[in-house]
Amino acid sequence: MIGFFILVMTLIEGSFFVQEPAMRVVAFFSGGESATILLALFALIVAAKLLAELFERLRQPAVIGEILAGILIGPSLLNFIHTTDAAGAATTTGIVIDSLANIGVIFLLFTVGLETRPSELFKVGKLATSVALLGAALPFLTGWLLILYWPGGHSHIEAIFTGAAMVATSVGITARVLSGLGLISTEASRVILAAAVIDDVIGLLVLAVVSSLASGHVNYLQISITAILAVGFTIFVVLVGAKAVNKIKAPVEALRINHSLFIFSIILCFGLAAVANFIGIAGIVGAFLAGVALSEASDDTDLHQQAQALTEFTTPFFLVNIGLKLNLAVFLSPQILLLSVVVTVLAIITKLIGCGLPALTLGRRRALQIGVGMAPRGEVGIVVAQIGLGLAAVSDAMYAVVLFMAVATTLAAPPLIKIAFANESAVDRQADGRELHYEIH
Amino acid sequence: MIGFFILVMTLIEGSFFVQEPAMRVVAFFSGGESATILLALFALIVAAKLLAELFERLRQPAVIGEILAGILIGPSLLNFIHTTDAAGAATTTGIVIDSLANIGVIFLLFTVGLETRPSELFKVGKLATSVALLGAALPFLTGWLLILYWPGGHSHIEAIFTGAAMVATSVGITARVLSGLGLISTEASRVILAAAVIDDVIGLLVLAVVSSLASGHVNYLQISITAILAVGFTIFVVLVGAKAVNKIKAPVEALRINHSLFIFSIILCFGLAAVANFIGIAGIVGAFLAGVALSEASDDTDLHQQAQALTEFTTPFFLVNIGLKLNLAVFLSPQILLLSVVVTVLAIITKLIGCGLPALTLGRRRALQIGVGMAPRGEVGIVVAQIGLGLAAVSDAMYAVVLFMAVATTLAAPPLIKIAFANESAVDRQADGRELHYEIH
Repeated sequence: MIGFFILVMTLIEGSFFVQEPAMRVVAFFSGGESATILLALFALIVAAKLLAELFERLRQPAVIGEILAGILIGPSLLNFIHTTDAAGAATTTGIVIDSLANIGVIFLLFTVGLETRPSELFKVGKLATSVALLGAALPFLTGWLLILYWPGGHSHIEAIFTGAAMVATSVGITARVLSGLGLISTEASRVILAAAVIDDVIGLLVLAVVSSLASGHVNYLQISITAILAVGFTIFVVLVGAKAVNKIKAPVEALRINHSLFIFSIILCFGLAAVANFIGIAGIVGAFLAGVALSEASDDTDLHQQAQALTEFTTPFFLVNIGLKLNLAVFLSPQILLLSVVVTVLAIITKLIGCGLPALTLGRRRALQIGVGMAPRGEVGIVVAQIGLGLAAVSDAMYAVVLFMAVATTLAAPPLIKIAFANESAVDRQADGRELHYEIH
Repeated sequence: MIGFFILVMTLIEGSFFVQEPAMRVVAFFSGGESATILLALFALIVAAKLLAELFERLRQPAVIGEILAGILIGPSLLNFIHTTDAAGAATTTGIVIDSLANIGVIFLLFTVGLETRPSELFKVGKLATSVALLGAALPFLTGWLLILYWPGGHSHIEAIFTGAAMVATSVGITARVLSGLGLISTEASRVILAAAVIDDVIGLLVLAVVSSLASGHVNYLQISITAILAVGFTIFVVLVGAKAVNKIKAPVEALRINHSLFIFSIILCFGLAAVANFIGIAGIVGAFLAGVALSEASDDTDLHQQAQALTEFTTPFFLVNIGLKLNLAVFLSPQILLLSVVVTVLAIITKLIGCGLPALTLGRRRALQIGVGMAPRGEVGIVVAQIGLGLAAVSDAMYAVVLFMAVATTLAAPPLIKIAFANESAVDRQADGRELHYEIH
């Protein structure tokens, strides 16, 4: 009890309990800065899961609760967790949470990949490419033109950056919602996942061109090489990866170290994520492909449950971290708020149309599912805005607008996904035996 | 293949592949600094597991392989992973690895706690207290007197600090070796775990007094309060914790969020670790106690396997990080090397005698097992030395000596543990069905 009292006191005062020099040494011994970090991680998980439970009870997606938990404990409201110092530099706590968030979204996409057979990706390849292409082009052009003609004299480069920030889908959010509903294996989910991988590559190429424009020099050769490497890497892993993994499964399992297949999977996951990073595409694409390569080999093993445990522990950091980035105080300005809402609405509508149109061949219902599934921008939009800010191509106000759009599309998507998949889900759920969990809601 | 080539190139050159400004932006989008971190984490796990496999094949404990992996890829030899910059400050990679190492040892002790019933701890409580007390006193006095009379004119405070660094056992190493051998449930293991918890509290109180001496002011009241809080916290969690957890297990499992018992366990683990930290004892003590409190409730649940997955992923960071801290270049000086070896040998002998003597009531064999089980100092000794360095109470040379002692006792302990438990283990292993795994070795 005393311990918990101290904990609460410390949370409230935001300072160490022990102030005597000798005791501060003791605090350091038992962690010091890592004591603060430990407390931050604890507070983060508790807040995330309390709000997740609340949202489940309100029959809303838990994902929203976890992102709102970030807004709640972040700089906007309670200010419990300090990820940046007064000068705006990342604190140690901020670095650790960022890293766990990155690891979290990597494991999340890896787990989703584990549920995805290579053959299933190929089946939807063509359609997914059209979905990704039109779903990138429409938001980009809309964002560009909107900011160019919006009152306030925004520069051309700022308009282009806003367009670029509206391109890339945060597949992590959609994947989390769909797997939470037990819907990761539906046809629409396959298209969404495949399209999101392609969309990510497109988004990065657009960003490369846009950033080059901002710095006044575009190296088309280098960008072409990245594009070729990215496409080649993806096709290579999907084509050859699964076969290679199936072949080396037996030797890996024969290794002396404990849980060798699980260890091998982690290594493959981080390895392909690192390769993806160095090619110039997002690490999560590599992690997803690692999961796909392992999907056949993981049957009848503990791998699913083990990967799930890592995902359960780390995903809250990814979700809460999105909320932590947002400081609501900026939106007290009505102009910024208005533009933010307009950009957000257009970001959703353009993905809905851009991704939905090519998917109409599957029927209106599937088109709608795919459209809303591609809507959340999440961490991807935030990073684009940060780059624009770093290159001085984007003003503080426009940074806030893009940040709002990224978080708001992410918050809006889960309920839309739930609605779009409503009846679908009941059928699927009965097929895989998860109906009981759902009926409670 | 190209991807892997780039990866290898980058590892060798220690720099980014992409140097064009536009591409550097892309690298940032896909992680930038986090690309470097991802690669470091990948290299760390690969090195750890390659050497673990090698050591398993040489019939040596895998733990040694993983620590040596840290020495191999650290500043001493290959210099792949840079945890500190030229000025000695922690890099972002260093902060992330340190945090994952802390999380790793927390999960490790939590998993060990899950295998430990509260009643089993009580049974060995008295004996464990004697083991911890004499096992702390003897190394402390020996280290103090040795440095005081060792040629080279070491100051009194430096001698006391060396003694303090020789006190605390790194129970993480022993726990890892014992659970790797399937021996965590033997009588000697129980005594070691209980004694290590008490030993940790003693070690921290000694450090508090010693640090106060170094800064010239000892606050006995504050130190007494810490002692009382630490003892009260431990007894409270063991006495009340398990009962409370058993009672709330059903409501927790009825929560709407997925894997609610697992989530609750993580929260309890981090929560008690944070409380322990703020009382002034090591976070791992809190994590261990959280595991003990959950040990009964975790029967017939997925909790063991889920916690095991987290431990498997994070423990390599803890083990490799110990190796990363060591820079072998210091030991080119024969004087430092000689003193290091003497301190290491005395550190092992004094724990062997100090912990073994009280345990003689269980017979010589058990006394030996407990003595070697308490020998590794690991990260605890390193932190004490760092504090001494920070207070300018310890010279660079003596810091190197203590660091050597901490790593060398940690490397020496696993084979000694394996020998001390040799026949014992065969019996136990047959009882719990793990004999097959062992026969392969």
